[in-house]
Amino acid sequence: MKIYDVEGFPNPARVRIALAEKGATDKVQFVPVDVMGGEHRSDAFKAMNPDAVVPCLELADGSHISQCNAITEYIDGHFEGASLTGESPKERAQVSMMNLRAENGLLNAVSAYFHHATPGLGPDLETDQCAEWGNKQKVVAGQTMGYLDDVLADNAFLAGDKFSMADITAFAGLAFADFAKVDIPASFSNLTAWRAKVAARPSIAG
Amino acid sequence: MKIYDVEGFPNPARVRIALAEKGATDKVQFVPVDVMGGEHRSDAFKAMNPDAVVPCLELADGSHISQCNAITEYIDGHFEGASLTGESPKERAQVSMMNLRAENGLLNAVSAYFHHATPGLGPDLETDQCAEWGNKQKVVAGQTMGYLDDVLADNAFLAGDKFSMADITAFAGLAFADFAKVDIPASFSNLTAWRAKVAARPSIAG
Repeated sequence: MKIYDVEGFPNPARVRIALAEKGATDKVQFVPVDVMGGEHRSDAFKAMNPDAVVPCLELADGSHISQCNAITEYIDGHFEGASLTGESPKERAQVSMMNLRAENGLLNAVSAYFHHATPGLGPDLETDQCAEWGNKQKVVAGQTMGYLDDVLADNAFLAGDKFSMADITAFAGLAFADFAKVDIPASFSNLTAWRAKVAARPSIAG
Repeated sequence: MKIYDVEGFPNPARVRIALAEKGATDKVQFVPVDVMGGEHRSDAFKAMNPDAVVPCLELADGSHISQCNAITEYIDGHFEGASLTGESPKERAQVSMMNLRAENGLLNAVSAYFHHATPGLGPDLETDQCAEWGNKQKVVAGQTMGYLDDVLADNAFLAGDKFSMADITAFAGLAFADFAKVDIPASFSNLTAWRAKVAARPSIAG
């Protein structure tokens, strides 16, 4: 099993944390992709992943899975260990819902701000910007942080009392927010405390 | 179990097709939401679904699930019948990946065009438009139709040889494209043939 990615990038981080949570990091070969050089937009890479983004999972049979949620679904089902996607239908639905809220409202919103309303990865790669949209998404990211802070007032983790992929997604979203200089208000004390707790997990702290 | 929705809207249609595929339509009470009157943005509705969109699922215990993917996950796990989300880890990952491609690249792209670059649901509801973004997403929708057409050259359904939630999402996306007057090129003959086949399923043709 191979993961094509860039160490330290937000979406690759989600998959690496999921693998570490399952104790499976050493069962995967990581293949670096030269995103800054545009390798993810090459025909060879797009034959594996037409989305032209990292990460991309290659299975032993040569087939490819992209989209972090799908890759995490595979990792969670394939490896032993505590579930990251939920067990009962209700748990699975709650994890899916909270993961999508964290993804669309925080991680993807910060990403849209970074790629559309800042220099992003530079002029060679940011060739289709829409600054007005990027700035609107920065507002969405702030609103989502407030929503997550409210959720964490009553819950140990985003989908209830168990750590899940929703926490991984939101954690990566906050890391991206730091990188993109999107402010995380100190008044969101539930979010800040949750972040410290997640950062201390062996899958992240090492 | 209740579904708060609007009959005929694209995302509600996804959940209604999923229920019909599971033979469970008559096990759910549908509660109409006055979206044109802004009911989905009321405090009462946002207490159920802070995303302020339809559909929203209410479980027997009074808890709420929103986001179509999460609602479909619940329906698929709770009711008997052929799986809509896949069974093995690889199948589940493929369905998740193709569903997200159809959702982000087609349904959500058409939705962004409709709500941002056309009068959409009218000036009372479309209060935060970004026409430049909407028009870019119209281009994305066309590109995704081409991608799905390529996938369907080699596969009976979007995630392989079995009907899945990815097909439901793409089918709803094409219906929204018709409504929003986003052209579906006749040259995409695989997509057109697949669409006719899906439309003939009892869950849709009735």
